[in-house]
Amino acid sequence: MHTFSGEGAVPEELDRAECLRLVSPGGVGRVAFDDGEGPAVLPVNYVVDGERIIFRTGLGGRIDFSLTSVLRGARVRVAFEVDSIDFDAREGWSVMLRGGAYHLGADEIAELPVLEPWPKGEKESYIAIDPVETHGRRLAR
Amino acid sequence: MHTFSGEGAVPEELDRAECLRLVSPGGVGRVAFDDGEGPAVLPVNYVVDGERIIFRTGLGGRIDFSLTSVLRGARVRVAFEVDSIDFDAREGWSVMLRGGAYHLGADEIAELPVLEPWPKGEKESYIAIDPVETHGRRLAR
Repeated sequence: MHTFSGEGAVPEELDRAECLRLVSPGGVGRVAFDDGEGPAVLPVNYVVDGERIIFRTGLGGRIDFSLTSVLRGARVRVAFEVDSIDFDAREGWSVMLRGGAYHLGADEIAELPVLEPWPKGEKESYIAIDPVETHGRRLAR
Repeated sequence: MHTFSGEGAVPEELDRAECLRLVSPGGVGRVAFDDGEGPAVLPVNYVVDGERIIFRTGLGGRIDFSLTSVLRGARVRVAFEVDSIDFDAREGWSVMLRGGAYHLGADEIAELPVLEPWPKGEKESYIAIDPVETHGRRLAR
């Protein structure tokens, strides 16, 4: 038996400043991109440099390499999502940033906060995302 | 000072059976789709029905509505990601499913496991994803 009713809370929309504040500590986010076969989404550990999201990729699987190659020399539109969700309490927040992603050069990398890769791998690259759009929601009870 | 070296673990690739097993309890996942302005990614609570991922949307923000309208009457390629990551231990697993997403009709909805929406909202719809491709990785130390 299925019920359509629900006592859902009304989500609060978060403004740009709050979205950027929530993602600023870094941690784990998920990057969504098109690898030529449609949307893909991959968790990455990231840091924030100014307003930019920075992560490393090309480290493990086919999809990582795919993202690296999609970005070769170009700025490509991606989305980046960070959330903190309490499943039992059914509350939390999520932020999605959208904007161009691009490879960082060696001199830019030297200036960054430390960002250690989790998986072992090769052909790694540093990728930055400039958040042009922000979308955020908080759900509290 | 930045270091390129890392004692990263070697990720284990997960086969389809293991990917489907890991997502089967349901919970929170992130759906990636193209809303016409590029990739977007949104957390949703979901259940599994057979091998299908089922979630509800159109419940809160602009992006939810966008996903609902992208799917209007069509089967659209999306990606769905679930993970369990211990940030401090730097280990965990992630699974990405890719395949067609489509709206469920009222008779199909009646047969589903209970799936209560978290946010309050209107114009909600039920969306299913058939996982054609699976990608999974586990990182342990």
